[in-house]
Amino acid sequence: MNNYPETITRLINLLKKLPGVGEKTAMRLTFFLLNSSEEYVNSLGEEIKNLKRKVKLCKICYNFTEDEVCAICKNENRDRSVICVVEDVNDMIGIENTGEYKGVYHILHGSYSPITGMTFENLKVNELFDRIKKGNIKEVIIATNPTAEGNATAIYIKDELKRINKNIKITRIAVGIPAGAELEYIDKITLTQAIKNRTNF
Amino acid sequence: MNNYPETITRLINLLKKLPGVGEKTAMRLTFFLLNSSEEYVNSLGEEIKNLKRKVKLCKICYNFTEDEVCAICKNENRDRSVICVVEDVNDMIGIENTGEYKGVYHILHGSYSPITGMTFENLKVNELFDRIKKGNIKEVIIATNPTAEGNATAIYIKDELKRINKNIKITRIAVGIPAGAELEYIDKITLTQAIKNRTNF
Repeated sequence: MNNYPETITRLINLLKKLPGVGEKTAMRLTFFLLNSSEEYVNSLGEEIKNLKRKVKLCKICYNFTEDEVCAICKNENRDRSVICVVEDVNDMIGIENTGEYKGVYHILHGSYSPITGMTFENLKVNELFDRIKKGNIKEVIIATNPTAEGNATAIYIKDELKRINKNIKITRIAVGIPAGAELEYIDKITLTQAIKNRTNF
Repeated sequence: MNNYPETITRLINLLKKLPGVGEKTAMRLTFFLLNSSEEYVNSLGEEIKNLKRKVKLCKICYNFTEDEVCAICKNENRDRSVICVVEDVNDMIGIENTGEYKGVYHILHGSYSPITGMTFENLKVNELFDRIKKGNIKEVIIATNPTAEGNATAIYIKDELKRINKNIKITRIAVGIPAGAELEYIDKITLTQAIKNRTNF
């Protein structure tokens, strides 16, 4: 039983579909909006409507962009012979924030997870292979997550890439102990990898 | 540093203003929307824009409504001689959900809290006094929260109401131990009140 006007009920039902938003949070957000300035509420509604209309995928690397090609692919100072393959745009942002990487990216938009319906047809893997086939690529850094799904994706990409071009250098981001972490709390798999991948010191 | 297209950045900044939504959640919501159907995203944006335009305050009790007068005030079966005063619409919904109360309401839209700028001028208290002055009210149930702010609001309303009409019955919701709770975990103030307000058994 609820006695809200229909507009409120409809908004609550839509907000409930957002991740991490239940009935109570949806109500709290709605009442917050009712008490907010008309200007704020209108621009929020407008920007949400804009989102799907304005934001496209870069036709080279599948990063989000408002143009045909994203800012990174457009940048003449980036090394276009090195491609870093990531699962999501946020992984790319994380690498960008280090300020250390000067190559370009390829965003898969997910990882291989047949249980949730994510097969290789749903990932931008063929688009990656097409980029490689066009040539001029020296190295592909596979930076999918070191999870079951990310590793499966990495292995698939590695095998396909080797079939396409035997001379291409294929690397994988290092698995190890995060900086600042304490060994005693690190899981066995990570610790095993960290010892195996030890570097000269 | 962030490399999102402007539309994404603008939406993230707007979402960050919502209660309980920080940078990470705003990003997660935005990416969820980017991966959602155009239909869902458009209706969410549209309903947000509708909210402030369509939802008004009932001119009698200040409940949310899409008409001039809310469904409860319109209902001929409600006892209009009893007014239950609550802080927020959600408090009213809670009382409605009990199915026990047959009177009408008055929503203050807050409680007295000078620290956060909520003085009596910002609450719908004068509107309540005007309703009482018009007559035909037998009882006012003050159901503001039993908190410092709610109690201060209740005392102020009681004093004013007595000045307006000496014969009006003024009651306050009972403070006591919540049903199902265990005494050992109840705070001292509640327990003191529960003993003081004990009922014949």
